[in-house]
Amino acid sequence: MPKQLHVNLFEMNCVSHIVHGLWVHPENNRHRFNDLDYWTELAQLLEYGTFDGVFLADVIGTYDSFRDGPQTALREAMQIPSNDPLLVIPAMAAVTQNLGFGATFSTTYEPPFAFARRMSTLDHLTKGRVGWNIVTSYLPNAARNFGHATEVVHDHRYEIADEYLDVLYKLWEGSWDDDAVIQDREQRVYTDPTKVRYIDHVGEHFKVAGPHLCQPSRQRTPVLFQATGSPAGIGFAGRHAEVVFTGGIDTAAVRANIEAMRNKAIAHERDPAGLKFIVMAGVIVGRTDEEVSRKLDSYRTLMSVEASLAHQQSAVDLTRYPGDALISDLIALKVKGWESLQRYKPEWKVSTVLAQFSGFNRERFFVAGTPTVVADQIEKWLDEDGIDGINLRQYLSFETARDFIELVIPELRRRGRFRERYNDGETLRERLFGAGQARLPGDHFGARYRDAAVLQQPARPLRFS
Amino acid sequence: MPKQLHVNLFEMNCVSHIVHGLWVHPENNRHRFNDLDYWTELAQLLEYGTFDGVFLADVIGTYDSFRDGPQTALREAMQIPSNDPLLVIPAMAAVTQNLGFGATFSTTYEPPFAFARRMSTLDHLTKGRVGWNIVTSYLPNAARNFGHATEVVHDHRYEIADEYLDVLYKLWEGSWDDDAVIQDREQRVYTDPTKVRYIDHVGEHFKVAGPHLCQPSRQRTPVLFQATGSPAGIGFAGRHAEVVFTGGIDTAAVRANIEAMRNKAIAHERDPAGLKFIVMAGVIVGRTDEEVSRKLDSYRTLMSVEASLAHQQSAVDLTRYPGDALISDLIALKVKGWESLQRYKPEWKVSTVLAQFSGFNRERFFVAGTPTVVADQIEKWLDEDGIDGINLRQYLSFETARDFIELVIPELRRRGRFRERYNDGETLRERLFGAGQARLPGDHFGARYRDAAVLQQPARPLRFS
Repeated sequence: MPKQLHVNLFEMNCVSHIVHGLWVHPENNRHRFNDLDYWTELAQLLEYGTFDGVFLADVIGTYDSFRDGPQTALREAMQIPSNDPLLVIPAMAAVTQNLGFGATFSTTYEPPFAFARRMSTLDHLTKGRVGWNIVTSYLPNAARNFGHATEVVHDHRYEIADEYLDVLYKLWEGSWDDDAVIQDREQRVYTDPTKVRYIDHVGEHFKVAGPHLCQPSRQRTPVLFQATGSPAGIGFAGRHAEVVFTGGIDTAAVRANIEAMRNKAIAHERDPAGLKFIVMAGVIVGRTDEEVSRKLDSYRTLMSVEASLAHQQSAVDLTRYPGDALISDLIALKVKGWESLQRYKPEWKVSTVLAQFSGFNRERFFVAGTPTVVADQIEKWLDEDGIDGINLRQYLSFETARDFIELVIPELRRRGRFRERYNDGETLRERLFGAGQARLPGDHFGARYRDAAVLQQPARPLRFS
Repeated sequence: MPKQLHVNLFEMNCVSHIVHGLWVHPENNRHRFNDLDYWTELAQLLEYGTFDGVFLADVIGTYDSFRDGPQTALREAMQIPSNDPLLVIPAMAAVTQNLGFGATFSTTYEPPFAFARRMSTLDHLTKGRVGWNIVTSYLPNAARNFGHATEVVHDHRYEIADEYLDVLYKLWEGSWDDDAVIQDREQRVYTDPTKVRYIDHVGEHFKVAGPHLCQPSRQRTPVLFQATGSPAGIGFAGRHAEVVFTGGIDTAAVRANIEAMRNKAIAHERDPAGLKFIVMAGVIVGRTDEEVSRKLDSYRTLMSVEASLAHQQSAVDLTRYPGDALISDLIALKVKGWESLQRYKPEWKVSTVLAQFSGFNRERFFVAGTPTVVADQIEKWLDEDGIDGINLRQYLSFETARDFIELVIPELRRRGRFRERYNDGETLRERLFGAGQARLPGDHFGARYRDAAVLQQPARPLRFS
């Protein structure tokens, strides 16, 4: 059987998430993000389309490096205003039966005990449909919103995150036995107290007594997503991640990234098949080439280069220089923030860099075309690059998702590349890894805490520095 | 016009909230608290009954003092397992238009920036239907779940809470002007950056940069609820609370408490009419006296004395002593934990104390009877005690609420004591304080931060020690 595609809609509880400037399009609904019915409509559309889930990005600060302030982000509604991602999930869950929900949350600024309870609550309310995108935060303004003078150093953030996960596993996997809750009305016993325990975690960064406040949920630990790049991030993902956001400039690079990650999982004594790989993808589809061109043009004219520069926290305001100036010249002139220009090729012109922010260039996981063209490309992503799924980038809400459902999914189904329907009652983890696999697999690091004896042992922290 | 009653259903995201042992009743739905449809059914019932709202209590630890462990709490499902209170609100909001939502959250253990965003998100999603019950936490186990060796000292918790509120007001009231969001698609401006500002809060306990991540919501600051008792709590409420949970053993005591609170508000230069007073009330109603007796009996037989002792964190296990033993004797014998017995009258017997936990005795705000008897009593509470509303204690979910809706509200309406319908589109604050009053009143401490100049000034902390 050919590999089938997993698809999440890539979302954020804000106006302009990742394709900037398009909120002004008359058919875009992004300005409705404050309203419940935006989210319930969206969830129902995605479930109608049998999407795997909706995946919510998040940041907890403002992009205020570009032009030394937040004015560009504010004007462009670039991830500000933005609302809490977890709180839209219960409303979407209330109007769906099968759709999954991934939410981003940072391990750096909020205590693990409360987060463990929030995710268990969501796993109960959704009957096992939640995933967590583990991030450690990177915005300087986020650090300043939580009492820090500046960002916690990158590798140290991963060491904190490793202990954070340790606390969570103890609460989610170890604090309550599967048969702790018996609900015996005759004997008047809801929980057998001998099957619930304190975790008494004492580490370098956290002290947490427990017991976990929630009884075991369908998945216990939510499906663990993580985006990687750095060596520390890959080391962390090797131990913890079940689904990795990856990427690469070409097929060889993507395959190499996946290979490196699988090897890291093996080093952590995990079955490398226990990892899935997804990428952010842009898909613009039309019934005809003319329709595709019309869409490309209508999007391109509205895209905001300035918002993209602000999103990059660009230290150099490239809009101030002539389009035909060479990056190498700006570096030679040591313009303010020139160090950040080293990510570009020196022979590029300023206009080449700015053209990147049109959103359609230089990307492995972008396709525009009719349904057969799109499906051909997606099959290559699955078979040649070796990915398992995509987070679908939105150009217009809800046009992007609707087009994918109406035009792409039927074509993928004809090729055996997409589910025909949901399996009733499956959890998000089962949708990804198969029936019966609602819980973390036994070879995952977090599973060790199911053994009450191991729960009492000191943790073995990962070291990145 | 006679004073009308405000009614919230008193809830908690757990099995056994405050009347313990009744979860085993065959018609009780409390074991369904993990399921979304418990909450959506409940919300629809309450909105059908034109309740003001549902009010969610919370604790973030386990009661583990009684008998030196959590076993009683676990066996009785006494506030454990318990799930996050905020996360059921969006689902209830999705199936209602008017019902209000109060949620408990502690200022002691989690950072204010994230909480500010969560409440703003809820205020957006509900279109201004949320309130916040400010607590500072008291369970020793809660402290140990958040890295503390033991509880933060009581009065110090209120000083931290005062600064916490300061941060929140700056984010909610001061960071964004009312006309900051313009959504001008022609000019491609979502927010006017000149009308959004950092808060740059630097205090004794918190450093928070801002800007707030959320655009202004209908109420901005949620309706502020607080339960008081201690002098520090009353001092805090005088500055901050809009709705105070109060009580008292008799009418004179209740009136004195209300009077003291209003005077404290005046001392903070607030209109004392800007405070409402609610009490927890037990109402057991039936069509006939026989029906009332049957209900009382069926509840009483199931009530759990042990769970109530655990809920009190009782240091003495009174169930180990003969029912006719005198409290004065136990004190004289200096039994372990005897100090805690001083709250009872020395001439009481052990059986007298334990009988308290049947839940029907010695309470000013309890009534059992036919609808006219209940309504007579409620009118006295309104007119003689001077309260404005009740949090209705549940015996059975959903019987308690359904009985109140079917039997009590019609009788209160006949007497002009209860709304006939909701006013379309009103916020929770407007329901309490009148049309047009969606925001904090101008004389409230939090309103000062609407002035950008004041936002930059150092705070004037309350001192309780």
